[in-house]
Amino acid sequence: MNKNKTVTTVIIANGRFPSHPVPLSCIREAEYIICCDGAANDFIARGGVPDAIVGDCDSISEENKIRFADILHPNPDQETNDLTKSVQFCVENGRQEIIIVGGTGKREDHTLGNISLLADYAELAEVIMVTNWGIFTPIHSITEFKSYKGEQVSIFSIDPKKLTTHNLKYPVEGRILTNWWQGSLNESLGDSFSIDPEGRVIVFQAYKQ
Amino acid sequence: MNKNKTVTTVIIANGRFPSHPVPLSCIREAEYIICCDGAANDFIARGGVPDAIVGDCDSISEENKIRFADILHPNPDQETNDLTKSVQFCVENGRQEIIIVGGTGKREDHTLGNISLLADYAELAEVIMVTNWGIFTPIHSITEFKSYKGEQVSIFSIDPKKLTTHNLKYPVEGRILTNWWQGSLNESLGDSFSIDPEGRVIVFQAYKQ
Repeated sequence: MNKNKTVTTVIIANGRFPSHPVPLSCIREAEYIICCDGAANDFIARGGVPDAIVGDCDSISEENKIRFADILHPNPDQETNDLTKSVQFCVENGRQEIIIVGGTGKREDHTLGNISLLADYAELAEVIMVTNWGIFTPIHSITEFKSYKGEQVSIFSIDPKKLTTHNLKYPVEGRILTNWWQGSLNESLGDSFSIDPEGRVIVFQAYKQ
Repeated sequence: MNKNKTVTTVIIANGRFPSHPVPLSCIREAEYIICCDGAANDFIARGGVPDAIVGDCDSISEENKIRFADILHPNPDQETNDLTKSVQFCVENGRQEIIIVGGTGKREDHTLGNISLLADYAELAEVIMVTNWGIFTPIHSITEFKSYKGEQVSIFSIDPKKLTTHNLKYPVEGRILTNWWQGSLNESLGDSFSIDPEGRVIVFQAYKQ
């Protein structure tokens, strides 16, 4: 039995450091925290102590490089970004339940890239992204989400394939979403909703305002 | 001849109000400023004076509703968002060159929606989105971009169709990008680059850091 199976691992990515209580509590309650290289200086300056630092290790300060030498895991691969390296590091170490924070809020192309990478990570582990505005969950088969009446829900298709929704205000029935916005700004009708996709889909649930 | 043809129109969307000099100078130099309903209070509080306010007009303050009654253009359509209503308003008034600012930086599903809507707007007008991090340009046929060596460029396919790039560090040759991140984090090799897409594509050029 893998003793890490139920340990909550949080990856702090290179985007804007979280300010919302939900991602902040994920960090506070994490049993294991991985900092992407570019996020490490900031997290440490805020008093955080990472369990691992993963990435190119070219943006971490000399001081932190010495102080955290034991937990540095440099990975110079030019083909993948620090977030992907961190997810791979988790998987290699049997960490199968991963929460990503700090994945958005800076360069929008990084935001789009990091969100869409969730669809790839979903093949390796159980991964969600928790932002200052809500939670992204990648799915590739019928999935039920806990919800509440009025929850704001957006659905983004990565693959151009049909999907069907249940218990959302604007139902989608066996239709292909041909632009990203087409599945956005939907709303839950009750305690749960479900999505039945033929391809890879990323679901966003916004926090209550 | 349409006298508005060369007038720069700026739409201030409902996202985070710009802080970077590039979008701020767009606002300063605009000959006509449209505020999406939800952005109006903020823009006015900063000393701005919009030429038109477009949207549901349910988020504008009572005070501003009275002060700006002459330039309010309420549009209650539930099927489109305030940004789309503002673009439609431009097109109806012969404004064919549009810069959108404030389109990102809050809820990520709104960010994704607003960016992807550029592909739809491109059928109606010449539209770009200027953010705190760079510029998004929607294209649907071969397009050359002014650039500089080392410029960070990301390409997002809206349609699952082939595209080819020229003068980018990581060339794409007649390939379909099957996830958003696959065209991201590219780099210009010189004074210009071009993209030849078979479908709709959105190009991001990051500002020099």
